[in-house]
Amino acid sequence: MATAGKVIKCKAAVAWEAGKPLSIEEVEVAPPQAMEVRVKILYTALCHTDVYFWEAKGQTPVFPRILGHEAGGIVESVGEGVTELVPGDHVLPVFTGECKDCAHCKSEESNLCDLLRINVDRGVMIGDGQSRFTIGGKPIFHFVGTSTFSEYTVIHVGCLAKINPEAPLDKVCVLSCGISTGLGATLNVAKPKKGSTVAIFGLGAVGLAAMEGAKMAGASRIIGVDLNPAKYEQAKKFGCTDFVNPKDHTKPVQEVLIEMTNGGVDRAVECTGHVDAMISAFECVHDGWGVAVLVDVPHKEAVFKTHPMNFLNERTLKGTFFGNYKPRTDLPEVVEMYMRKELDVEKFITHSVPFSQINTAFDLMLKGEGLRCVMRMDE
Amino acid sequence: MATAGKVIKCKAAVAWEAGKPLSIEEVEVAPPQAMEVRVKILYTALCHTDVYFWEAKGQTPVFPRILGHEAGGIVESVGEGVTELVPGDHVLPVFTGECKDCAHCKSEESNLCDLLRINVDRGVMIGDGQSRFTIGGKPIFHFVGTSTFSEYTVIHVGCLAKINPEAPLDKVCVLSCGISTGLGATLNVAKPKKGSTVAIFGLGAVGLAAMEGAKMAGASRIIGVDLNPAKYEQAKKFGCTDFVNPKDHTKPVQEVLIEMTNGGVDRAVECTGHVDAMISAFECVHDGWGVAVLVDVPHKEAVFKTHPMNFLNERTLKGTFFGNYKPRTDLPEVVEMYMRKELDVEKFITHSVPFSQINTAFDLMLKGEGLRCVMRMDE
Repeated sequence: MATAGKVIKCKAAVAWEAGKPLSIEEVEVAPPQAMEVRVKILYTALCHTDVYFWEAKGQTPVFPRILGHEAGGIVESVGEGVTELVPGDHVLPVFTGECKDCAHCKSEESNLCDLLRINVDRGVMIGDGQSRFTIGGKPIFHFVGTSTFSEYTVIHVGCLAKINPEAPLDKVCVLSCGISTGLGATLNVAKPKKGSTVAIFGLGAVGLAAMEGAKMAGASRIIGVDLNPAKYEQAKKFGCTDFVNPKDHTKPVQEVLIEMTNGGVDRAVECTGHVDAMISAFECVHDGWGVAVLVDVPHKEAVFKTHPMNFLNERTLKGTFFGNYKPRTDLPEVVEMYMRKELDVEKFITHSVPFSQINTAFDLMLKGEGLRCVMRMDE
Repeated sequence: MATAGKVIKCKAAVAWEAGKPLSIEEVEVAPPQAMEVRVKILYTALCHTDVYFWEAKGQTPVFPRILGHEAGGIVESVGEGVTELVPGDHVLPVFTGECKDCAHCKSEESNLCDLLRINVDRGVMIGDGQSRFTIGGKPIFHFVGTSTFSEYTVIHVGCLAKINPEAPLDKVCVLSCGISTGLGATLNVAKPKKGSTVAIFGLGAVGLAAMEGAKMAGASRIIGVDLNPAKYEQAKKFGCTDFVNPKDHTKPVQEVLIEMTNGGVDRAVECTGHVDAMISAFECVHDGWGVAVLVDVPHKEAVFKTHPMNFLNERTLKGTFFGNYKPRTDLPEVVEMYMRKELDVEKFITHSVPFSQINTAFDLMLKGEGLRCVMRMDE
């Protein structure tokens, strides 16, 4: 392309400081260096993680910064050493990478790449420790290696999944983080059998994706657990057959679930990040075969506590990161699941706004309205 | 047999009260009732669990009682409804059963039979709530449904594994509890891959059986962890390549293991029952793929505590009971592993005494000497 090797000036939403509305600015985006790719972002969605690091409560603040990590785009140009992608390829940027060379990438079981594992504090490229974004010569920091709240961004090749060019980017962009995280937690880690009973703790986008996974796996009873009773109606679209609000009961919710299911659920997936819900999710699975899966990230001081007999009675507790999907190897197949109509992505996209209205997307999420708001970069 | 349907008078070792030497008495053993089998015990070994319930510290005492649960014998007669066993069959009594009819027995994953799951407080048969042992008309209580410290005992058919009659009962008797528990924990639950690194916490008979399982699975590095340095020499026979004594280090043993293995072991098996060791065993497994398995039973007040991120970084914690073996379905095959010389049982049997010297076996175990002491019932 004519822009290859040159600085591109484009629009980006810059977070100048914690908690303050983003501001659309003209930024300079440097060309990609070795093993990097410059991507034209067409659609980006907003995920809780963006809001969390924008609020930056109890964190080392990294500002000014370009947030955003759930997106779809097209390769504009590639840096030295990039052989797997060429300009024009359709890609999903991912907040964690796959170098294909470390012990984790070589293991069939792990997606925790040593080189490109998520790093929320780093605001620069790993190659040279520099940012590719500047405004008037001053660097603007990156976010989790993606920074998709920009018309153009520079991403390590290991953090880009090359997908079917027929896939509509305005839909499949949401597969680059939360939806795949929940879906994979169920399909790849909890692995419920056909006809089984599954409890999902937390009915946000990730929890509903975990629920969708349970439905796809053929679970016959899917129990949603949430403190907000309004979530039940929406969850029904994702296969929810029963709803439990812990606030409606005086006994611990794990006891309620055990009674409802004659001994416990076959699988539980925890998508709230609250340690009490993690304990409940583990303790509500059936002895002998129950498996609980932790998805959401807890508070730094959180302590998981349980009596060891709960394990000895043949229960399993596992955690997952990004649904155990390897970004480059596995994500293209998740897109194919959508293309084959096995996976319904549209129902997760409750809002769509022009990129210029990005603060509206933040407001919706802060109010807890809707699941995913997709932003159209060209508007 | 001529004794079928009649009371048999024979020798048994009776525990009259907690912690007092057993006394060899003549007991009357009633004929088996519905779904029960009377077994002539030929060899019985002593397991920690016998000693634990003989000491009866912090438990509801159930005395007078006939302890014993690791044994081999021959069916003398069967009660009504027993179709799977006939007089002359060689059997291993098991402290937990398999009814083949409950949800657990029907699940491929569980061996926690609803009907015949271990019950340490019950001293009677489940059919009629009575004991089959009497002395001068007064009942003597059973222990975990087996009571093998008797020349004859009555056992529910669901707690008897029918084994190859060619198998030497003086050897395979030790497969009816501890050895299978450790072996199965590794082979059935931890499932280390060929070439992997495995840590075993606690190098008693169960831990060494878990270690033997790791060796059989092809683990290339097997790290034994024990507070007693004398255990290393013996453990080498079971495949131990490295030994760590937590007392030799100021830092937590999980950190020592992580440093030794460049990030953690692939699998850990915990065979001490101490909750601190359980936490160490979990926290020393590698992120991305590590699996820790809890085998030994903890103190009632024990609390397992860890930071949930240890799970979220893709570690798995599971517990097992009797190595996940279904007693009737799977134990015969463990015996066959011995018959095919894939499993070496002899090295677990460090002592052998006549039944009349049963208190010597108790002394050896209390002193921590040896692994298994087999008692010959006919002496």
